[in-house]
Amino acid sequence: MSLNLQTHKEHFTNPLYLESGRILEPYDIVYETYGELSSTGDNVVVIAHALTGSHHVAGVYDGDSKAGWWDALVGSGKAIDTDRFFVICSNVIGSCFGSTGPMSKMHPYDDSYRYKFPVTTIRDMVKAQRILFDRLGIHRVHAIIGGSMGGMQALQFAIHYPNFAKKTIALAATYATQPWAIAFNKIAQEAILKDPEFKNGYYKSKDIAKDGLSGMAVGRMAGHISFLSYHSMREKFGREYKRTDGLYELFGKFQVESYLEYNGYNFTKWFDPLSYLYITKAINIYDLARGFDSLQEALKRIRSELHLISFDSDMLFMPEEMREIADLLSSTKSTKVEYTNIKSNYGHDAFLVEIDKFEDQIREILEE
Amino acid sequence: MSLNLQTHKEHFTNPLYLESGRILEPYDIVYETYGELSSTGDNVVVIAHALTGSHHVAGVYDGDSKAGWWDALVGSGKAIDTDRFFVICSNVIGSCFGSTGPMSKMHPYDDSYRYKFPVTTIRDMVKAQRILFDRLGIHRVHAIIGGSMGGMQALQFAIHYPNFAKKTIALAATYATQPWAIAFNKIAQEAILKDPEFKNGYYKSKDIAKDGLSGMAVGRMAGHISFLSYHSMREKFGREYKRTDGLYELFGKFQVESYLEYNGYNFTKWFDPLSYLYITKAINIYDLARGFDSLQEALKRIRSELHLISFDSDMLFMPEEMREIADLLSSTKSTKVEYTNIKSNYGHDAFLVEIDKFEDQIREILEE
Repeated sequence: MSLNLQTHKEHFTNPLYLESGRILEPYDIVYETYGELSSTGDNVVVIAHALTGSHHVAGVYDGDSKAGWWDALVGSGKAIDTDRFFVICSNVIGSCFGSTGPMSKMHPYDDSYRYKFPVTTIRDMVKAQRILFDRLGIHRVHAIIGGSMGGMQALQFAIHYPNFAKKTIALAATYATQPWAIAFNKIAQEAILKDPEFKNGYYKSKDIAKDGLSGMAVGRMAGHISFLSYHSMREKFGREYKRTDGLYELFGKFQVESYLEYNGYNFTKWFDPLSYLYITKAINIYDLARGFDSLQEALKRIRSELHLISFDSDMLFMPEEMREIADLLSSTKSTKVEYTNIKSNYGHDAFLVEIDKFEDQIREILEE
Repeated sequence: MSLNLQTHKEHFTNPLYLESGRILEPYDIVYETYGELSSTGDNVVVIAHALTGSHHVAGVYDGDSKAGWWDALVGSGKAIDTDRFFVICSNVIGSCFGSTGPMSKMHPYDDSYRYKFPVTTIRDMVKAQRILFDRLGIHRVHAIIGGSMGGMQALQFAIHYPNFAKKTIALAATYATQPWAIAFNKIAQEAILKDPEFKNGYYKSKDIAKDGLSGMAVGRMAGHISFLSYHSMREKFGREYKRTDGLYELFGKFQVESYLEYNGYNFTKWFDPLSYLYITKAINIYDLARGFDSLQEALKRIRSELHLISFDSDMLFMPEEMREIADLLSSTKSTKVEYTNIKSNYGHDAFLVEIDKFEDQIREILEE
């Protein structure tokens, strides 16, 4: 059996009504599928991606060397087994990897949206996906799974489309973004906005891709702090110095500084600054309780079996936030909920890098 | 009795031999004193300031409205009682408040040092202070106390001048700066360096003071994240929105964003970017064990009674780092050591804002 990676794009001309009251029309959604849809259509697993992720979850494109972001989890014989499941992941609205976002052409003009792009929410992202799945004839799925912003989407699905997924698995996520996480996003937003090369949103994408955008690099460095943890940094970098001769040089570098620089500047070559502003905004205003009297009222709508997985060293979305969801749902007894707090030193990044810590659990949930 | 605040400046023409092997000459140190020196000179308390602090610890200057940074702790009848103690605090070498730093004139030229200023370490800062105290006829003091970088100085004093202070009190500090803290400093350094208005270090101070330096503002925002904690942010800001109508506006603001912006941009009006680069560098390379076979060997030199105070929510210099010092010293039994971990939700900032949590302890230590 093979991964059977396929990339598709769908075009929508009906307006997407957004939470803000604004509309997006027309719009595109790109998505990838893996495996084969069963004759009864009962083997669909939806994956939702995180802030800088994309629809490219697994496998390697021709001519590329880097595998998809959850390649260790998704594939033939892996925990999300493409021999058995038909896996689908779509790129979120607002992103820069093919679905309509701030750098897309604004109909009927030939200009890009830039700041004219509407603020989209996690709920909007989910709504657009639901419309995509409807068009594809997928009305009910076996499971939806995601980490970080992907976990937010999974939870948003479970509340707003209670009959959509049989099982919902959210990793390293929360019910509402807390000020600590908003603060890290703020650094990135401010650094981007104040970079003169950002040109108040009127930069040329090819300039950014070529020369980088130091503001976004700085912002991404702050992101990388929040993705790691105090202990993972100590373990990974200690006080190792990049150059042994440079301790008393103003620009001498510790390993951790070198790591942040590399990741920060590399990031600006493959991600769009306006998408970063819009998606971090979506994360900041994410709140499952919005539109309900309380979080509990929102959670009560869930019919899907709910699996919540947090990582004890996650400094971005703290385990206690996931536990709060579990506690609230346990008290209502409205659906089955299972909460697991995994021991890891990798902080928030654990959902991407410590696959071996949770793959067996995912496999069991899906096969159960 | 009164605070008896006095500001002084001393000029030194003998070279200051730095850890790096470079020298600084000539140089100035500004300092403030409070209270009166006793006839036997046995009532001196030295205070060491933190990264952006200064010699102005307590009281209010004429025509100013803001009190010194530890005004709640230092004064007539307060925990560090100026009716009883002669308190002295000097501005560190490298700072921008009067002691020689990167924006000082480089002798015999009329230019500022800027990048030609040598990298100075916490040990260098302490050495310069020791020379100042010698000139003032102060060869032994009752106590030295400081928080954060001030705590680093206190510990450095205790190791390198074991007979100098009878009691050493370090709050919210560490024995060596860990990668988590270095990473936050990196954000600030990178944001400053990449700001075109920084002009590769050749900015005009009056332009920065007037227009601010957004890179330094962004960097300071990252600092403010590290000074707080996940819980203090939740408590202080929650998900409160600054403008109720703006949730779906890209530039609408949460309270926490507004707090960071205010503190970040305000900071650039009163602090110098080159000083920020040099002092964060000093903090990054701070390591009590440097020059010794081990941290334990370094700590063994201490003869001063050592009081270590950490705050359980401190995310910058974790309590466990202070406990490590205490554990190592307890095992050598070379001096009296006392370690206290104070419950606080204010994170690293607690040493500045939760005075009531430790003032009684400080009073007792000093009066004992």
